[in-house]
Amino acid sequence: MPKNPAITQVAIADLIAQRWSPRAIDPDQPVSRDQLLALLEAARWAPSCFGDQPWRYLVWDRFRDPAGWRQAFDCLAEGNQLWVKNAPILLLAVAAPNFGHNDQPNRWAQYDTGAASENLCLQATALGLVAHQMGGFDPEAAKARFNIPADHVGMAMIAVGHPGAIELLPQALAEKEQAPRSRKPLAQLAFEGRWGQSVQN
Amino acid sequence: MPKNPAITQVAIADLIAQRWSPRAIDPDQPVSRDQLLALLEAARWAPSCFGDQPWRYLVWDRFRDPAGWRQAFDCLAEGNQLWVKNAPILLLAVAAPNFGHNDQPNRWAQYDTGAASENLCLQATALGLVAHQMGGFDPEAAKARFNIPADHVGMAMIAVGHPGAIELLPQALAEKEQAPRSRKPLAQLAFEGRWGQSVQN
Repeated sequence: MPKNPAITQVAIADLIAQRWSPRAIDPDQPVSRDQLLALLEAARWAPSCFGDQPWRYLVWDRFRDPAGWRQAFDCLAEGNQLWVKNAPILLLAVAAPNFGHNDQPNRWAQYDTGAASENLCLQATALGLVAHQMGGFDPEAAKARFNIPADHVGMAMIAVGHPGAIELLPQALAEKEQAPRSRKPLAQLAFEGRWGQSVQN
Repeated sequence: MPKNPAITQVAIADLIAQRWSPRAIDPDQPVSRDQLLALLEAARWAPSCFGDQPWRYLVWDRFRDPAGWRQAFDCLAEGNQLWVKNAPILLLAVAAPNFGHNDQPNRWAQYDTGAASENLCLQATALGLVAHQMGGFDPEAAKARFNIPADHVGMAMIAVGHPGAIELLPQALAEKEQAPRSRKPLAQLAFEGRWGQSVQN
């Protein structure tokens, strides 16, 4: 995968520093079944409240089921379709709204599903694959098309594949791909003792 | 950290396989500032919708601010206090409900915050630290006590410290600590093509 590591004031684990969300994907190279299983296993071992594991993943593989993959692709916003067209794998991350043990609302369902998806993306990084999450899709269309229970929440589509040549991207996205990554300063994200107070040295 | 690796049908990244949620924490060993910064930096570099980074973390360090730490500790459910009493660091993960760029509701706020917290816990694993998330706390008490904006959502308290002797735990928790970890079978968590259909080999 092209390198674009996080810039941090202290060292962090390489896997976390190397993960990012590229868009250039090789259209011709499938993701192997062992690779797909590794992504799903990594998600499976995320932590969750009461061990409920509220995440669900729907998978489409363009090399095995082009018609199904196309149906998933059609749920994406146009801006995403521009580059996702090359992705061999699409996943949809779904949050199950109620706890399994008592059928009561699980207020951590989306939080825990986000953790599982982060594991999935980190595992992709470990395998040298691109994984790029998208909020730009129509969750109601996906529900209707793929028989997803009405009370479940479609959180993100995830495009997965092998890294591809940057020339495959439209100009604007190619520029975005080569820009340095950035984040808010830590002082806006973390506080010590009470809200608004900086973490002390 | 005591080893209790995930059992998977294909290999996954060691960092993901090794992360788990122990409760035995050394009461006497502080977490260094560089370690704390590494945890927060790992969270900072998680992905988010529109790059909004909706996660916020509040930190309390028992060795620096015992009174503040105690106020945070008092927000925990009693069952958690039994073992968290030994933790040198408490964190609270908070989701900011609206996008920064337009102040409209961010439906990925909790999902993205979950991803950031997973990065934080994986970074703890990389440093040989215990990090254990808890839903069992009073988010409204925490909001009032620490001046957290009313519309923000307290998602999880996270206890962090160095691994400790299992004898420090009450008997029931010591047994839990030594039990094998488990997850639902992949067939309940991942589907291919449409809801309910197993991933093919």
